[in-house]
Amino acid sequence: MASMATLFVNTPYHSHSFPKPSSAHFAPVLKLSTHLGSKPRNRQRLRISNGLIEPDGGKLAELFVEESKKGETKKKAAALPRIKLSRIDLQWVHVISEGWSSPLRGFMRESEFLQTLHFNSLRLDDGSVVNMSVPIVLAIDDAQKRRIGQSTRVALVDSDDNLIAILKDIEIFKHHKEERIARTWGTTAPGLPYVDQAITNAGNWLIGGDLEVLEPIKYNDGLDRFRLSPAQLRDEFTKRNADAVFAFQLRNPVHNGHALLMTDTRRRLLEMGYKNPILLLHPLGGYTKADDVPLSWRMKQHEKVLEDGVLDPETTVVSIFPSPMHYAGPTEVQWHAKARINAGANFYIVGRDPAGMDHPTEKTDLYDADHGKKVLSMAPGLERLNILPFKVAAYDKTQGKMAFFDPSRPQDFLFISGTKMRTLARNKENPPEGFMCPNGWKVLVDYYDSLVPADNDKVPEAVPA
Amino acid sequence: MASMATLFVNTPYHSHSFPKPSSAHFAPVLKLSTHLGSKPRNRQRLRISNGLIEPDGGKLAELFVEESKKGETKKKAAALPRIKLSRIDLQWVHVISEGWSSPLRGFMRESEFLQTLHFNSLRLDDGSVVNMSVPIVLAIDDAQKRRIGQSTRVALVDSDDNLIAILKDIEIFKHHKEERIARTWGTTAPGLPYVDQAITNAGNWLIGGDLEVLEPIKYNDGLDRFRLSPAQLRDEFTKRNADAVFAFQLRNPVHNGHALLMTDTRRRLLEMGYKNPILLLHPLGGYTKADDVPLSWRMKQHEKVLEDGVLDPETTVVSIFPSPMHYAGPTEVQWHAKARINAGANFYIVGRDPAGMDHPTEKTDLYDADHGKKVLSMAPGLERLNILPFKVAAYDKTQGKMAFFDPSRPQDFLFISGTKMRTLARNKENPPEGFMCPNGWKVLVDYYDSLVPADNDKVPEAVPA
Repeated sequence: MASMATLFVNTPYHSHSFPKPSSAHFAPVLKLSTHLGSKPRNRQRLRISNGLIEPDGGKLAELFVEESKKGETKKKAAALPRIKLSRIDLQWVHVISEGWSSPLRGFMRESEFLQTLHFNSLRLDDGSVVNMSVPIVLAIDDAQKRRIGQSTRVALVDSDDNLIAILKDIEIFKHHKEERIARTWGTTAPGLPYVDQAITNAGNWLIGGDLEVLEPIKYNDGLDRFRLSPAQLRDEFTKRNADAVFAFQLRNPVHNGHALLMTDTRRRLLEMGYKNPILLLHPLGGYTKADDVPLSWRMKQHEKVLEDGVLDPETTVVSIFPSPMHYAGPTEVQWHAKARINAGANFYIVGRDPAGMDHPTEKTDLYDADHGKKVLSMAPGLERLNILPFKVAAYDKTQGKMAFFDPSRPQDFLFISGTKMRTLARNKENPPEGFMCPNGWKVLVDYYDSLVPADNDKVPEAVPA
Repeated sequence: MASMATLFVNTPYHSHSFPKPSSAHFAPVLKLSTHLGSKPRNRQRLRISNGLIEPDGGKLAELFVEESKKGETKKKAAALPRIKLSRIDLQWVHVISEGWSSPLRGFMRESEFLQTLHFNSLRLDDGSVVNMSVPIVLAIDDAQKRRIGQSTRVALVDSDDNLIAILKDIEIFKHHKEERIARTWGTTAPGLPYVDQAITNAGNWLIGGDLEVLEPIKYNDGLDRFRLSPAQLRDEFTKRNADAVFAFQLRNPVHNGHALLMTDTRRRLLEMGYKNPILLLHPLGGYTKADDVPLSWRMKQHEKVLEDGVLDPETTVVSIFPSPMHYAGPTEVQWHAKARINAGANFYIVGRDPAGMDHPTEKTDLYDADHGKKVLSMAPGLERLNILPFKVAAYDKTQGKMAFFDPSRPQDFLFISGTKMRTLARNKENPPEGFMCPNGWKVLVDYYDSLVPADNDKVPEAVPA
């Protein structure tokens, strides 16, 4: 088991000098309580404790079959109706089985599905509430439903028919796709990437139940060693004597704005009295849309950022978050935060327009850029998590570096858009100095170089912030 | 102040015999705990208490200006920017000002709007949660926003420019219509009645703030005496020594299935140990779609139902619920239930497909007919309310009366659809005997008779259940 950070401990570039917090020119707005309107919420005061934050529901739901029972499970499974999992389905089995979605113990039944759609939260047997904003469901079609018949359990297999898991005590209910989409995304406009990929052509039924998973999910893509489970991450944080863990979700290359924000957050946590805050740099590893930079290239880029000393490997754990991406803005950011509680994070950094994208049919953002952090700060079941919003950063031409956007002198700032990044990287040009470490930038140039566009206008676009 | 029931106490038809509970052939499924899937919720056990249920937030938000300050308020208002209220806006001022939406103290600010859309609930300062599923908002356009400028308060006026209220400590935020519609209705299909009426052509901004309302809202339509406020209803229930109040929301004529359900519910509450359960028969009086039977005709029909002795006036309070109708199914039924808590009801009867309608563009119901009661039973902030779901009733041809649908003998049952009702009433024919009391039916016949259809196919349709 090795996080990228621990891996890097064994490599020579750790002797590189690490920028001092005082050099940070990208400062987070560290607000622990966000007052909205005239009804400020009562946010729990910051608590400094020795142990890691508890998982939702009190205990990680790890759903693997015991070694001694695997033979029996395989035998039983042979007689069961089979459901073939898509790649995204398999990513969800990964997510559920390791406990990222604790206390869920399998794909949602209707009760959980409805609570997710309407309340973005689940009420547990003891009356407590946990956050759950994104439906984690498995779709089947009419023919599969008929084949399942009266069976109370089914076998889940991968594309090569290998047994992955058993789903038991199943419940089959209608897949109201339009309602699911409308309530999850706040739009039903055609062109939502996850919808096109995983919902539109999916079956008209959903099947919920409890999972028994045969083996931890692996992808054999050279990156499995970075896919630490919540339990493994908790072990790592404990090993490092972390007394605070701050998570940074990303699905894009790290630029200096991000990096210095993370460094500065650590400095502030130290000032608050924490002795050893650890950064969980946590790129999303599941399904992403075609124009996002692929995971393998992002991991190379993150590696360079650590090599170049932009982040401190001693206080940084780089690991992959196995969830697929919904691009569902304020709804999805709650999922991103909640899953990190389960991995031991008690601080969550949230930026402008998290999990957002362009509206698929209109020339505007799909979400109000401020809604993500507002919704996150008010979300049921996330009261224990400290939300760290940060301001928009842009390239300050007067300083030649990334800085907070200052609305009093807009003419001094350059917003380096995805289109701009793409054009620069495709043309092997450099961005303004100070935007990204040179070796990280080179990875991006190499990535675009590796693409053989059929048409220059169709080169995928990397969105940098 | 007079509820219809108390009004009827002074009329002779109270000597009519009242059907005994034993004659009830329409029995509700009285479930106090609804277990869904494998994660049953912990529903609070039924408590029998002497006082009425507390309003949400502990106290009714009644927002009227004190008599002694009215002059001053009018003077101040004269200098303020003005917003002209639509009929629906005025109905919402009515709703808010009497405390139906307690603890709201005015049109929603962005924090409340976002919590409503995403969580169907609001977190209060003390950390407690109240239900709030439907946005109660006031839209303004660009020109109005410009006119308001830096003012912190505005005057709200009716269509004749009479001052209705002051909205103070205002907050103006974007009206993301598509997102509002998608998250409230679970669809963005064209043809949603409330959307067409109140959202599509509304302004691109929402203005929230605290209301100071000059006078209780009146409509001068001969029905104001039936529009009891939550405080007035509470007084009425207290006067009658109610130890349980069960609310029945409706926007359609009462047929014998409804009536006997209500009678039977009372019998069951008595069996549970309540000494004096009172029925709140609570027709919705705000905006309804064109093909619903208008309020005035419905009130006449309800009057006949009481006259005919189908319901007992001594234990029934008929009053008008001033809210506009959204037709937003599982989202709206929560609002209908929550508002009745504020009026003192601790039991809420929920039927099949509450607040539902046909899908505006597809040949199907807009909502799963079972979702309303499921969502209601799981809704945050409604834990104190006892939900009473009831089964589908239909006309049992073998018994010649309304009865529970028995799936083992579907051929024996007649579902009397809206279309069927309309055709019968329009043709002055009678429904099967036992479907509705004759005088109530006559009101419907008279209503359709009063319409002069431009085209026979366009006669509005009354939906009976």
